[in-house]
Amino acid sequence: QQVRVALFAGDEGDEAHGGGIELLSPMDDAGPVRRFLERRGEGLHHVCVYVDDIEAHLSRLKAEGIRLIDETPRVGASGRRIAFVHPSAAGGVLLELEERPSR
Amino acid sequence: QQVRVALFAGDEGDEAHGGGIELLSPMDDAGPVRRFLERRGEGLHHVCVYVDDIEAHLSRLKAEGIRLIDETPRVGASGRRIAFVHPSAAGGVLLELEERPSR
Repeated sequence: QQVRVALFAGDEGDEAHGGGIELLSPMDDAGPVRRFLERRGEGLHHVCVYVDDIEAHLSRLKAEGIRLIDETPRVGASGRRIAFVHPSAAGGVLLELEERPSR
Repeated sequence: QQVRVALFAGDEGDEAHGGGIELLSPMDDAGPVRRFLERRGEGLHHVCVYVDDIEAHLSRLKAEGIRLIDETPRVGASGRRIAFVHPSAAGGVLLELEERPSR
């Protein structure tokens, strides 16, 4: 994705119930974050929601006709499985699902 | 604030480490949420971060010259103490602090 990431984690509690703020900065003149900055300026890039079973959630969203960017999970910078929902399906907000183990 | 609220809480874990999604809808033709919709359309209205000692955080932000909407806490819909940081100080995003007990 050609980005530099600084992660400000909250006191995570446990794997599945934490949260944090991720600062993203493009490393060069291309890539999706550079394009976002050019189009919309600085601000909130995406919101991430932790889910237990990412494939089950993607199947359900697909069955409901929700527009997905990733129909199958890929591995994110965190090493965990992620998938993006298209902003047009979430009030203009780019929505990320990240798989985290339930406790 | 003249809004109707539907709260989709995550599995909260505990008081201080949960999270959720709040849907806001204006109840009439006035108020800040109605104005937001007219100006910017549907989408992400604000992001809320849980803090342990809200007054300590507000003091620190004020000392650093961060523009606040609420210089002192008020009581939010949740019954907890909250305060808003001005969007101009947070990359265009309206930021809410909500006081939650640490564990």
